[in-house]
Amino acid sequence: MLIEGRNAVAEALRAGLPLKRITLADGLKPDRAIDEIVRRAGEAGVRVDRVPRRKLDELSDRGNHQGVVAEAAPFRYAELGRVLKTVPEGPALVIVLDHVTDPGNFGAIVRTAEVVGAAAVVVAARRSASVTGSAWKAAAGAFAHVPVAQVPNLVAALDRLKEAGFWVAGASERAEQTIWEAPLDGRIVLVMGSEGEGLARLTAERCDFLVSLPQAGRVGSLNVAQATTAIAYEWMRRRQGAG
Amino acid sequence: MLIEGRNAVAEALRAGLPLKRITLADGLKPDRAIDEIVRRAGEAGVRVDRVPRRKLDELSDRGNHQGVVAEAAPFRYAELGRVLKTVPEGPALVIVLDHVTDPGNFGAIVRTAEVVGAAAVVVAARRSASVTGSAWKAAAGAFAHVPVAQVPNLVAALDRLKEAGFWVAGASERAEQTIWEAPLDGRIVLVMGSEGEGLARLTAERCDFLVSLPQAGRVGSLNVAQATTAIAYEWMRRRQGAG
Repeated sequence: MLIEGRNAVAEALRAGLPLKRITLADGLKPDRAIDEIVRRAGEAGVRVDRVPRRKLDELSDRGNHQGVVAEAAPFRYAELGRVLKTVPEGPALVIVLDHVTDPGNFGAIVRTAEVVGAAAVVVAARRSASVTGSAWKAAAGAFAHVPVAQVPNLVAALDRLKEAGFWVAGASERAEQTIWEAPLDGRIVLVMGSEGEGLARLTAERCDFLVSLPQAGRVGSLNVAQATTAIAYEWMRRRQGAG
Repeated sequence: MLIEGRNAVAEALRAGLPLKRITLADGLKPDRAIDEIVRRAGEAGVRVDRVPRRKLDELSDRGNHQGVVAEAAPFRYAELGRVLKTVPEGPALVIVLDHVTDPGNFGAIVRTAEVVGAAAVVVAARRSASVTGSAWKAAAGAFAHVPVAQVPNLVAALDRLKEAGFWVAGASERAEQTIWEAPLDGRIVLVMGSEGEGLARLTAERCDFLVSLPQAGRVGSLNVAQATTAIAYEWMRRRQGAG
């Protein structure tokens, strides 16, 4: 995975994202950001190469490298089948992201998953946020503790989870039941939709039930990471038999 | 309020933060970010001036303007006394931020406040996040609907809120009661501590009780915006007599 641009690379280093190598353009004018990158790379033992800018242009996916790219060590996704074997009988939570695209949201959700004791987070292989520096930063270390499985097909993954005894709850503003009314107990898969679109139709159809987050305001809804936290805590409340 | 740097100014324009004027350095090399800034400024009817770079250096607070600064229209904070007069008797939630410094967290909390129907958010005048482009973006329009009061002294503000019939609950990992055990009902002030330090000692002493968020993971706690959402939803659950 390639991280491009001064801010993104500096942020990845600050957050402790494991990097394989950093490449700078020859003749790059030193500034505060570059100095920080070189210093932190040294501290973290990350190799820094210098190449002609033309080479960087070839490497770059998006063309806005600003003379700096970093190559992250590939993130080790978990294999869903293997994760399921480690989940004990009884109450468990798996959070499935139906194409959440913002890395900050992705990271924050993994952090929430860790804090509430979720068994895993499942993401689609395409059109989804990947484990960038921003995701790593928002997760505050949680990627090291919660298995994150990447699957080619979310609907097939939901079917496997159902076979493993999970009930699939989809978060949707159109749900008839709120999180306080729905059976959010026990072995639950919580499916969260993308920032722009919410749940895809095929995903929603595969859910056993839909749940909504009550809203008292005039404007709108929470962002997907905030919403995940509110729902995950309701699952946790019931698990602990509290309230 | 001055917003400095290409990304910050572009983000402020994208988020619709009201701007008074944008100033670019003479002879700035056009690039994608600058093009976007000029285009969006035109669409939003924001004046764009060009001045010698030396002038920008003088304007700049932080020296990293990258040739671009924007002046935001000053945010209109609410006056706490006036807000309190508009809060009806009965259940109400006021969220007090004890020096939350990250603008993204601040904005996300204002968004949560709006969604759960909080009466106000109260922040300290110093050492607190202000209403930047990132805060505005994270709030997704909520700043227009939830009064945000800025106060010189948080402890004095808590005393005023108590006089108005509120119970003051401080979020703290050291609390003896969880959010499910504590009396988070009715007229509640929820005090959230800063990202690094949590609640200040003086603030914590002024709370009627402390509440903790249960955690089942190995690493740690939620960030302050996620934690606010989880607690605010517990207040809302009880208000609706649900679960």
